[in-house]
Amino acid sequence: MDIQLVRTVNGEVARYDGRHVDEIRPVKITRHWTSAPEGSVLIEAGNTRVLCTASWVEGVPRWRHDSGLGWVTAEYAMVPRATSQRTQRDSVRGHVAGRSEEISRLIGRSLRGVVDFAAMGENQILIDCDVLQADGGTRTASITGAYVALVDAVEWAREKGLIARNATVLRDQVSAISVGVIQGVPMLDLPYPEDSTAGTDMNVVMTGEGKFIEIQGTAEHGPFDRDQLNTLLDLAAKGNADLQKLQREALEQQ
Amino acid sequence: MDIQLVRTVNGEVARYDGRHVDEIRPVKITRHWTSAPEGSVLIEAGNTRVLCTASWVEGVPRWRHDSGLGWVTAEYAMVPRATSQRTQRDSVRGHVAGRSEEISRLIGRSLRGVVDFAAMGENQILIDCDVLQADGGTRTASITGAYVALVDAVEWAREKGLIARNATVLRDQVSAISVGVIQGVPMLDLPYPEDSTAGTDMNVVMTGEGKFIEIQGTAEHGPFDRDQLNTLLDLAAKGNADLQKLQREALEQQ
Amino acid sequence: MDIQLVRTVNGEVARYDGRHVDEIRPVKITRHWTSAPEGSVLIEAGNTRVLCTASWVEGVPRWRHDSGLGWVTAEYAMVPRATSQRTQRDSVRGHVAGRSEEISRLIGRSLRGVVDFAAMGENQILIDCDVLQADGGTRTASITGAYVALVDAVEWAREKGLIARNATVLRDQVSAISVGVIQGVPMLDLPYPEDSTAGTDMNVVMTGEGKFIEIQGTAEHGPFDRDQLNTLLDLAAKGNADLQKLQREALEQQ
Amino acid sequence: MDIQLVRTVNGEVARYDGRHVDEIRPVKITRHWTSAPEGSVLIEAGNTRVLCTASWVEGVPRWRHDSGLGWVTAEYAMVPRATSQRTQRDSVRGHVAGRSEEISRLIGRSLRGVVDFAAMGENQILIDCDVLQADGGTRTASITGAYVALVDAVEWAREKGLIARNATVLRDQVSAISVGVIQGVPMLDLPYPEDSTAGTDMNVVMTGEGKFIEIQGTAEHGPFDRDQLNTLLDLAAKGNADLQKLQREALEQQ
Amino acid sequence: MDIQLVRTVNGEVARYDGRHVDEIRPVKITRHWTSAPEGSVLIEAGNTRVLCTASWVEGVPRWRHDSGLGWVTAEYAMVPRATSQRTQRDSVRGHVAGRSEEISRLIGRSLRGVVDFAAMGENQILIDCDVLQADGGTRTASITGAYVALVDAVEWAREKGLIARNATVLRDQVSAISVGVIQGVPMLDLPYPEDSTAGTDMNVVMTGEGKFIEIQGTAEHGPFDRDQLNTLLDLAAKGNADLQKLQREALEQQ
Amino acid sequence: MDIQLVRTVNGEVARYDGRHVDEIRPVKITRHWTSAPEGSVLIEAGNTRVLCTASWVEGVPRWRHDSGLGWVTAEYAMVPRATSQRTQRDSVRGHVAGRSEEISRLIGRSLRGVVDFAAMGENQILIDCDVLQADGGTRTASITGAYVALVDAVEWAREKGLIARNATVLRDQVSAISVGVIQGVPMLDLPYPEDSTAGTDMNVVMTGEGKFIEIQGTAEHGPFDRDQLNTLLDLAAKGNADLQKLQREALEQQ
Repeated sequence: MDIQLVRTVNGEVARYDGRHVDEIRPVKITRHWTSAPEGSVLIEAGNTRVLCTASWVEGVPRWRHDSGLGWVTAEYAMVPRATSQRTQRDSVRGHVAGRSEEISRLIGRSLRGVVDFAAMGENQILIDCDVLQADGGTRTASITGAYVALVDAVEWAREKGLIARNATVLRDQVSAISVGVIQGVPMLDLPYPEDSTAGTDMNVVMTGEGKFIEIQGTAEHGPFDRDQLNTLLDLAAKGNADLQKLQREALEQQ
Repeated sequence: MDIQLVRTVNGEVARYDGRHVDEIRPVKITRHWTSAPEGSVLIEAGNTRVLCTASWVEGVPRWRHDSGLGWVTAEYAMVPRATSQRTQRDSVRGHVAGRSEEISRLIGRSLRGVVDFAAMGENQILIDCDVLQADGGTRTASITGAYVALVDAVEWAREKGLIARNATVLRDQVSAISVGVIQGVPMLDLPYPEDSTAGTDMNVVMTGEGKFIEIQGTAEHGPFDRDQLNTLLDLAAKGNADLQKLQREALEQQ
Repeated sequence: MDIQLVRTVNGEVARYDGRHVDEIRPVKITRHWTSAPEGSVLIEAGNTRVLCTASWVEGVPRWRHDSGLGWVTAEYAMVPRATSQRTQRDSVRGHVAGRSEEISRLIGRSLRGVVDFAAMGENQILIDCDVLQADGGTRTASITGAYVALVDAVEWAREKGLIARNATVLRDQVSAISVGVIQGVPMLDLPYPEDSTAGTDMNVVMTGEGKFIEIQGTAEHGPFDRDQLNTLLDLAAKGNADLQKLQREALEQQ
Repeated sequence: MDIQLVRTVNGEVARYDGRHVDEIRPVKITRHWTSAPEGSVLIEAGNTRVLCTASWVEGVPRWRHDSGLGWVTAEYAMVPRATSQRTQRDSVRGHVAGRSEEISRLIGRSLRGVVDFAAMGENQILIDCDVLQADGGTRTASITGAYVALVDAVEWAREKGLIARNATVLRDQVSAISVGVIQGVPMLDLPYPEDSTAGTDMNVVMTGEGKFIEIQGTAEHGPFDRDQLNTLLDLAAKGNADLQKLQREALEQQ
Repeated sequence: MDIQLVRTVNGEVARYDGRHVDEIRPVKITRHWTSAPEGSVLIEAGNTRVLCTASWVEGVPRWRHDSGLGWVTAEYAMVPRATSQRTQRDSVRGHVAGRSEEISRLIGRSLRGVVDFAAMGENQILIDCDVLQADGGTRTASITGAYVALVDAVEWAREKGLIARNATVLRDQVSAISVGVIQGVPMLDLPYPEDSTAGTDMNVVMTGEGKFIEIQGTAEHGPFDRDQLNTLLDLAAKGNADLQKLQREALEQQ
Repeated sequence: MDIQLVRTVNGEVARYDGRHVDEIRPVKITRHWTSAPEGSVLIEAGNTRVLCTASWVEGVPRWRHDSGLGWVTAEYAMVPRATSQRTQRDSVRGHVAGRSEEISRLIGRSLRGVVDFAAMGENQILIDCDVLQADGGTRTASITGAYVALVDAVEWAREKGLIARNATVLRDQVSAISVGVIQGVPMLDLPYPEDSTAGTDMNVVMTGEGKFIEIQGTAEHGPFDRDQLNTLLDLAAKGNADLQKLQREALEQQ
């Protein structure tokens, strides 16, 4: 793409899709998108679209037996034609791609960061994030959507009497957003055309209290300094606050 | 499920979801559901929901080089929580499950049955059918939806000048439907609760002309005779005619 | 091969190997071909040669525990040089080929269609069909031979007192044959030169009573209509009756 | 088995199957057992039965390109019920078992030890040894049978004009036999009941000239000394001479 | 371990191994530890011991052809008994573990962050980091050691005339260190006993200029705030400066 | 390499590295090279360098349950750049290479040949031999080093009271050495340049008593006769005696 990613209009920096540098893309969170899972959320962030399901499973893995504690884990994948070029299925290749497994682990850690495992009892919630369309920010959209599916699965279990009526299983909200430096300008929530040209790219997972659960910043194409880091973290804090408002609105419905 | 699958009302056989024995489920075909693929169709048949994409790829596999002929192939998979119990991902298991591969081959054969490969030139169309929710009939819904995605990919290529303006790449329509014998009664289009109790289960792939491309009937739980076969084929002919009408309506839009 | 597959002699259709259109190839069934398995049959159908063994195994898979029911399953494979071109071993490729797994599942379903699992108790019979030479019809020869091996394994178990003296484990015979349309002419029992040029190819598994357990017809290279289907099924009925006579003769010996 | 492996009759040591300690089992070598391969031999040594095929393949692996030299390699496998207990297929397990690969490599090295690669040109002969029934000595029977199949494949290529009319592709014969120490007594050609109780077990591959190509002796269950080694090698020399006579007789026919 | 990880002595915080909170473990960098690789470094950081080799390979992967640019990539693994409990080999498990692949990717990105690919020409340097003993910080020790091996490989290529005499292939130094919060106290360079109890754990990759190439902070066991983040980054800056001094000293020798 | 492997000096045969034909390379055995394993030995034989660890694991594999007997098994691998050309990791290839598995099995058998399993109780010792630098003789160095690690693991268990104070777990010493015929001259302990040109190559595993546990001789590039075999075995006996003296010296040191 030879579009101009960053334009300056009246002295203000603007982006090729018209957003401000500190503005997230339009986000739509649809709960109960499919009916089988205990939690099922379709999250759309710009053109990125991820189906996040949460499956309640009795019992925990062997290494967790007799701990009295539950467990939450996640798997992330893309359908082959989520991307502009078709990608080979992991199942055909014979193993989960490193990138997929790395993101799966990130999603799991992010959600576990707000879970009280004692309140779950010895049960598991398995999160599946299947990217149906990818336009940047699929891992952060997965976390943001999976949190909502996780809430629904917890409430399902509460209604079934599988967890205590007044147990606080989720200690806080959790959401994630990307930030990056494009042509020297720090920006919030990068779609693919921006992401692929960013010198620095960072994913920031934050709680409702504004604390960090995970920061993953990489600058393979140009190291960044402490000042840039601080600007990026400010942007991420704003973006996560916006997302968490949308999560709350989605959860208040129905 | 101990629901009563077949009720007799005034001498007529009825089904647990109120359909007649020769009635298909409500079907919705949404084209362009995602924007990256050359063809992208979300097909919903009752609660079964499949994303069918068609990817145009220049060139053909090595064994097809210098033949002047194109190729069409397909891959079928389910997201883990398409089903009421979560199923393990093929990628985690390390290979494509036999069932998935068998269905992938069926979809590919069914579509190839109406393709004129010479008209395609040495190009491939890769079909991906990802089941997002499964309630019986996922393989037949995949074929029915994939045909529409295939048409869109062919037209995309025609507009790009990749195939001749007036070439007839698709010689006919193709759709598929299941039929089966439940408690002795032949029926059309079985959702999961019926399918799982059927003595005989048959998938029938037919062209717009009403010819057969594939018949796969299995009676592990009770052999069937020639009369039953004939009744089942009559039902399948009606069901496929209904589906093909819906395919045409979807393709006439926009 | 540019041999003439179909010749017309005196107004009658004849085949390149001299058979009539409704004639099966010479079949030889050798029981006890190896001595270790509970059932061991070498079946030769024309040049196709398959070693079918039946292994009695105490106990059933986990999902079948405490059901009081037995289980029958099958695996199909070819030695690399069963074919005119050597094919790579599945073990070297790292997984069972889709085709092999599909045929394995077909053989298993076909045999299970005549088994009374309650009469077996919680035991398994594992069928292995290893194709030593392939000249078309390997899957149908496998089913036909495996039935005989299955009978021998059941009788072995009966003699050992592992199943009741008068239990009817096998409710009926089962055999399979291919039919197809070659240059417009429906024919019975296709060897490889015919099979590879057939427009329509169908495998029909039938019981001794003449009922269907499985019909798999595919017409990737030219859809077929209802009349052709009926002719093919008539041929299959004749072929299976002939095979079942040979099965009975083999089982009467010794 | 609690049979008495070694009986002393009139001061002489005898074996449970009546053979002398320096006597090989009855061997039957059937050439052209299947018709597709360039060489196809069924070798039976006692109850051990191996199908050895030799496939002529034009061209050599990449690392051998432009060397002017041919290549010979081998693969060894067992059908699941070759043994008294069924063994899982390598293809199901997902990789070639270490034992199979080890034996494949041994067979390949043994045959290559007598091949003049320059005389073959840049062509390959692929040997497949599929054990249909296993009663000890499967790897040595494979080598002995594969040599005969190799001769037939070479002669096939000579007749086709693919190798020079008077080229000596095979510089010598090659055969193999097992020897071992049972209850302190060195013996020739161990069937499974003897092999499984042997303290020392050795496979000896020899040329027609009586030289060694491979010696593999293992004494996991009781180290052996130099005198025992010498006795074992004397037995192996006799056994290989006997086998080579049978190879020559088989090759002289037709 | 129920040792006291953090003790307070005279108002100052001390650690179970006596270090100050801002003190790295003793580090030893041995160049040319093995002789085959172009770069070969044994790095010891406390009890952690990693063999880092750099292999110069002519040519680049296919996707990089004709770019005029080189490539650097890395693989990370542990010997099974690097850890207190033996871990299964990835090769036995049948695929690279997610953790190993994730670390491999991190090492690769970190080194690529300082490489000028144009100066390398179309060549690759493959880094292998094999952990021989693991006591925390294996991924950061790998990066720190691999940088030194990378320098040696570049100089080897320069001496061979494979890269230009005065080309600046490495634009800067790179090293990495872990930081974390233990019982509320931010600390530098965590050995395993500290690492396994840390609420927050962060790996920081920095250049000689003090810029960031990668920050990976995770707080599965207790989110952290901005102030803690700042303290951790200050510690990491000190640790990396110390490590880079040791890298320079090692490279000045011989 | 076109170096002269064998020179004749004053009528005596000498080797390119100056050794006599019956002389082993300098060997250094370092115990406790890493601290986590129960036995940890770095063995250096010339430029060959292998890390041998012995891990004590409670319990035995399922097939050994309730036998009262222990088990010893081994795994062998190379780091990718142990060799002059980098080799791909088995874990990346997706399975253990045949060569690695074959050597793993050899090491296991060799060690088991001197173990009294009853004295171990139902426990396992897992040997890992990781080749850090390869210059010929890696499998024999692995056996020789692993024996020392095994002794240390047994003594560790004895001190922990896991095996009886006076139990003789190891009935004898065990070591291994290679011999071969280079340009017609039998020689002891071949480094890679000699090994790769040897016509005959043999690995000989011997006990302290001078008995054989394993003989693996292969002559793919030129069969050998009985006289040559005897000379090779004499050389191997001398080499193993030398190695066993070094093992004892290493074990006598604290």
